[in-house]
Amino acid sequence: MKLDGSWFTEAAPEEGIALSLKGAHRLHAEQTPYQNIEIYETDTFGTLMVIDGCVMVTDRDNFIYHEMLAHPVLYSHPAPRRVLIIGGGDCGTLREVLRHAGVQSVVQAELDERVTRLAEEYFPALCEANHDPRAQLSFCDGIDLVEDAADESLDIIIIDSTDPVGPAAGLFGEAFYRQCRRALGEAGVLVQQSESPFLYERVICDLHRALRTAGFADTRTLTFPQPTYPSGWWSATLAKKEGRLNSFRRSDAANQPFATRYYSAAIHETAFVLPPFLREALAFSR
Amino acid sequence: MKLDGSWFTEAAPEEGIALSLKGAHRLHAEQTPYQNIEIYETDTFGTLMVIDGCVMVTDRDNFIYHEMLAHPVLYSHPAPRRVLIIGGGDCGTLREVLRHAGVQSVVQAELDERVTRLAEEYFPALCEANHDPRAQLSFCDGIDLVEDAADESLDIIIIDSTDPVGPAAGLFGEAFYRQCRRALGEAGVLVQQSESPFLYERVICDLHRALRTAGFADTRTLTFPQPTYPSGWWSATLAKKEGRLNSFRRSDAANQPFATRYYSAAIHETAFVLPPFLREALAFSR
Repeated sequence: MKLDGSWFTEAAPEEGIALSLKGAHRLHAEQTPYQNIEIYETDTFGTLMVIDGCVMVTDRDNFIYHEMLAHPVLYSHPAPRRVLIIGGGDCGTLREVLRHAGVQSVVQAELDERVTRLAEEYFPALCEANHDPRAQLSFCDGIDLVEDAADESLDIIIIDSTDPVGPAAGLFGEAFYRQCRRALGEAGVLVQQSESPFLYERVICDLHRALRTAGFADTRTLTFPQPTYPSGWWSATLAKKEGRLNSFRRSDAANQPFATRYYSAAIHETAFVLPPFLREALAFSR
Repeated sequence: MKLDGSWFTEAAPEEGIALSLKGAHRLHAEQTPYQNIEIYETDTFGTLMVIDGCVMVTDRDNFIYHEMLAHPVLYSHPAPRRVLIIGGGDCGTLREVLRHAGVQSVVQAELDERVTRLAEEYFPALCEANHDPRAQLSFCDGIDLVEDAADESLDIIIIDSTDPVGPAAGLFGEAFYRQCRRALGEAGVLVQQSESPFLYERVICDLHRALRTAGFADTRTLTFPQPTYPSGWWSATLAKKEGRLNSFRRSDAANQPFATRYYSAAIHETAFVLPPFLREALAFSR
């Protein structure tokens, strides 16, 4: 069938796949110094934020992405206190991080202040922790912020970026990861959103290589469903400064004092199990 | 963006979501007594079969669905020899079942012979086991075939059906499952493709209820990514005639004498781990 004008469509023409959401009632559109941002009201996925034509967040399915970006990395560190989020302007990851009572400070370094201001207006639920005294919203280039960070001054770095083209390309490079590693404490762990394991296997392979070359001792990819991202299947890649990524605070995760809808201790364990085709592509030497 | 005429689109308007594949070069179209079948050549997903407007199978991603429909149920039975596939006319599930050397006979009961004839022409790789002497292609209504089956004459029933509307609606009902249970041996296991866990949670809940009411002792749902099905995330639900579904032939699965690209013993275990939102919806009493 052909879709009429009441659908919003994100196409990845080089991948030959497109996703459409019904109810393309556009509430807002603006060109910022960095990118084009649009807000839509959809029929069945609630409010939708689009950046440069790509779905960033919808009310209905963002919980999976935000929970899977925040909780696995936090439970992979013995006692995370100092957290840096790079990107993440919709503030959904920040909200999940702040659910951890042991976290003492979270800096969110978003390049484009307009993403956050629009999230505050159109996605108030994601921004409900923005005024937590532990949160600091910083509007700057995360690369500069990491370069200026003191050695071993962070426990966790979460790179909640857009795709590895345009403004976010530098966030996928070895030089940046080397600075991240320096800024992390000995038990430090980094996580990077790492695209679709089905469509962009190559991005994930390159990412592992860049992280290892930058000195991280271990790297592992987890996957999760994400219905409104291309292919409906997404990934995040963790990297540990020293030691292995083969354990986490399972008991803490199983007894987490807050509700999650996708994450659980059991999901944590299973999300890292990759199917043979992906394991082979990554040529893990485990 | 708007898609031009070179895309094939499957829309689920009531769910407000649509998927499009580029390269809508139509190779074939026909109306059979049961349904409308189309074959397309796409740019990046290979050949595509569409039934009544819904994506059935593409070259590129069918391996996940077929492996996950066949191998978990077969490894959940101690010694499966007699297998019935209902639907499955593209023959991809049949091919996977026949990889198991212990299987002695597989009847495939597909209502619409044209599905299989077109698969033989356009998806030869899926049909490469059709001439295995253990395979019997039967073109009939699976419901009749199960009613006529002797008590305890089957080890495995795989219901590889279209959506629970139209010709396949009866395959999701208690009366049919009761007949399936009667036809299964004591260690018998059934599996039913059970739609998107994200979009059709209700279908899965109803399915568990119907299977339990029909007398199955245990039911469990597994999930897997399926990029060209609505939401990109799909499920299959297993039901065991007697006893629990909490174990499988792990050692056999870990040493399987054939290659798989998605299934593995580790994936088998993890696929049954459901996120909290789904576990709560299913109100599992485990």
